[in-house]
Amino acid sequence: METKSIDNIIIIGAGNVATHLSKAFLKANKKILQVISKTTESAKELASICNCSYTNNLQDIKAGADLYLIAASDKAIKEIASAFPHKGSLTVHTSGSMPMELLKSTGSNYGIFYPLQTFTKDIPLNYDNIPFCLEASSEEKLEKLKKLAGEISNNLYEINYEQRQMLHVAAVFACNFTNHMYSIANNILQKDKLSFEILRPLIEETAKKVKSSYPNEVQTGPAVRNDKETIDKHMEKLNMFEDYQKIYTFITESIQKEIDSKKRDNN
Amino acid sequence: METKSIDNIIIIGAGNVATHLSKAFLKANKKILQVISKTTESAKELASICNCSYTNNLQDIKAGADLYLIAASDKAIKEIASAFPHKGSLTVHTSGSMPMELLKSTGSNYGIFYPLQTFTKDIPLNYDNIPFCLEASSEEKLEKLKKLAGEISNNLYEINYEQRQMLHVAAVFACNFTNHMYSIANNILQKDKLSFEILRPLIEETAKKVKSSYPNEVQTGPAVRNDKETIDKHMEKLNMFEDYQKIYTFITESIQKEIDSKKRDNN
Repeated sequence: METKSIDNIIIIGAGNVATHLSKAFLKANKKILQVISKTTESAKELASICNCSYTNNLQDIKAGADLYLIAASDKAIKEIASAFPHKGSLTVHTSGSMPMELLKSTGSNYGIFYPLQTFTKDIPLNYDNIPFCLEASSEEKLEKLKKLAGEISNNLYEINYEQRQMLHVAAVFACNFTNHMYSIANNILQKDKLSFEILRPLIEETAKKVKSSYPNEVQTGPAVRNDKETIDKHMEKLNMFEDYQKIYTFITESIQKEIDSKKRDNN
Repeated sequence: METKSIDNIIIIGAGNVATHLSKAFLKANKKILQVISKTTESAKELASICNCSYTNNLQDIKAGADLYLIAASDKAIKEIASAFPHKGSLTVHTSGSMPMELLKSTGSNYGIFYPLQTFTKDIPLNYDNIPFCLEASSEEKLEKLKKLAGEISNNLYEINYEQRQMLHVAAVFACNFTNHMYSIANNILQKDKLSFEILRPLIEETAKKVKSSYPNEVQTGPAVRNDKETIDKHMEKLNMFEDYQKIYTFITESIQKEIDSKKRDNN
């Protein structure tokens, strides 16, 4: 039996994830029927992009959508699910760290629609290769979610809760902490009135290298060379940045431990 | 008076930087006259790429090149400079952390030719936008180096020693430490048998965002939202990785301090 596609969607939430997913759905010719957000201003803004109605009252959510997508903060999901008025309709949330069972109070048809990407307001995204991590309360609902995600992206993963949580932690390192490394670099440059511009080609190349290699294969720098003189010099240069000295030390140690364990594995 | 171009170059060193710069020079139609490395095997390998002779003996360095480029470890530069037989010839080194005065023993014509990029063997590079950081013992020699670097790249910077050292530290954060963040993420994924592939679009987008924004403007994640529940959950998930817990804590604190200081600046 062919899986019926999801055509009409109601969006609960109006933040970055809700906005980007709505745009992705519109691009895939889906119809957004309604936007719900406790902040009327945000609801209105997203609704105008989606050319649909909006409300700030969960009790006014329209009936009959093929999918109710909850793109809200982790804390809000449970509350929204409890108040959700159309028991039995297909509901999903987009969180990387909450179980799908949080949606049990909406009835027996629920799932996860977790896009692994960094969403920033006003920064347009290419949705084609965003990894969608999917999970559902039944095989049939999983197929429906797969079909929908497949209309947006070529990158679908069936991921259980344990894996999704680890993925969420890994993403913090690969994205949020990486961005903070860029930020520290920029703060260091500013002390000597150097422009961030000078680092941009290096940042680009660093990311490009791991497109076709694994990061531990392409590690460079004083830590991996065990170049103690340079490391000491850097610590001295960082003496007006106590916190950065601490981070420098721990990451350097972590790089060196990784090399040591690689050596042990090779013996 | 027009600056005479550098046409013939001798390369001292045969590692990653020496190899990539030699390729960049060849692409710009320069002639490499000779390769010198204490490891004969490496000298031979690079010389075959450059179609030139090689030696492992500093006393056999040929006279008459327009430029002698020392792309060697920080420790080796001084020793090479002391033994250098053609006093007064234009010599440069490529180090981000050593002063140009290290080359004083080669005579009075010296400088810095520091490419700010991550060089990995067998990973081809586009040299066009590599930032070259230049410094020289005289205005005339600086012009010569600018002319040469300008034949490889559009990205030239006149940088003094203090700035170059800070840049080198910043590059460790923006490149080496960033790559280690990728590596930690990969190690976390492996525990749950998840492929690094799933993170690649996120890594690409994270780097792409700072091409047109500053990193502190586009920071996302639980630290910047002050989402304590998620942070606690992540710490628990990392309980088999003690070092990663430590790094998680310090970087999270650093992100939060950055936000606090931004708030203070805005008040």
